[in-house]
Amino acid sequence: MKLYDMGRAPNPRRVRIFLAEKGIEIPKHEIDLAAMEQRSDAFTALNPMQRVPVLVLDDGTAISESVAICLYFEKMHPEPNLFGRDAVESAVVEMWNRRLELNFYGPVSQCFRHTNPAMAQREKVQVAEWGNACRDQAIDFLGMLETELGKREFVAGDRFTIADITALCTVDFMRVIKLSLTPEMKNLSRWHAAVSARPSAKA
Amino acid sequence: MKLYDMGRAPNPRRVRIFLAEKGIEIPKHEIDLAAMEQRSDAFTALNPMQRVPVLVLDDGTAISESVAICLYFEKMHPEPNLFGRDAVESAVVEMWNRRLELNFYGPVSQCFRHTNPAMAQREKVQVAEWGNACRDQAIDFLGMLETELGKREFVAGDRFTIADITALCTVDFMRVIKLSLTPEMKNLSRWHAAVSARPSAKA
Repeated sequence: MKLYDMGRAPNPRRVRIFLAEKGIEIPKHEIDLAAMEQRSDAFTALNPMQRVPVLVLDDGTAISESVAICLYFEKMHPEPNLFGRDAVESAVVEMWNRRLELNFYGPVSQCFRHTNPAMAQREKVQVAEWGNACRDQAIDFLGMLETELGKREFVAGDRFTIADITALCTVDFMRVIKLSLTPEMKNLSRWHAAVSARPSAKA
Repeated sequence: MKLYDMGRAPNPRRVRIFLAEKGIEIPKHEIDLAAMEQRSDAFTALNPMQRVPVLVLDDGTAISESVAICLYFEKMHPEPNLFGRDAVESAVVEMWNRRLELNFYGPVSQCFRHTNPAMAQREKVQVAEWGNACRDQAIDFLGMLETELGKREFVAGDRFTIADITALCTVDFMRVIKLSLTPEMKNLSRWHAAVSARPSAKA
């Protein structure tokens, strides 16, 4: 088993934090970004989307998409539970993880890709107007999340789940678009301090 | 229990097909799009993202995001299984469902929202250049999917899963951006005919 990883990127970090919460250690291969290894034929055979992370099982099965990799480990090592236990909790965790991805991680990532000059060679078309609109979407979502975190301790309920991992990695990734939590965001700041203090956050 | 539905939209259709495959019938409330019911205070209280579908349980719990709603029913009514059985199959289904959403449904939807004049009032900013880039992404993904469907009968393996529902709803939704399968796409055409012939496709 091997995890194709990339140290600085937010999606590989989601998987590393998930594994740290589970207490799972597996061999990792660090992708050589400078050499564009993710565009190589060998890597494209593992993931035609040319993205990390990718988990390759001992029988050669390649699993990409961060949440799919996390789901594999959740099924193999059910405790501590991070995807929800019964039908309702599982659905609520899934709902929040998706809200975060579609309305927060997605916009932050799109803003970075479409406004940062360093990303111009990575995108077929860089559309600054779209990138700026995404920045506004991310700011709107932060306001909604601030309200929600006034109602409960963690993103999807009263305990830490994969939704908190997605939220933490996105909040920390906001630096690439020069966005950060402000002192007025009291609930988000309280939550961010708590999840950042977990040992897994260093993964 | 009540499902907030919208007849013509692709995401509510994903849930209706999923329920039809499971043989589940539940009361539905059709959102009044002309009256902008999804922007009303009452609906926003159910889903701050102001999107359908939303499932409201008898205790008032509101679950939004199509896949979260499907996951609720998968856990409550496990057969026929549509999310994968063991760890590997579950991860592969999740991977394909996400690839489809991020690289196919997302681009088709974004193209529609950013190039169709009728959508101008629905988007804060309509960026045609971005919409056109998304169209190209969707076309690229179709090429990849054509290759993949030459290797197996269904999107994520040798049986019908939620990934096929996402793919079917997206292929049928392509009409809004004037994109359709071509006769040269033999594998996609074979797969599309098979999944469209299932009784659930009419849901």
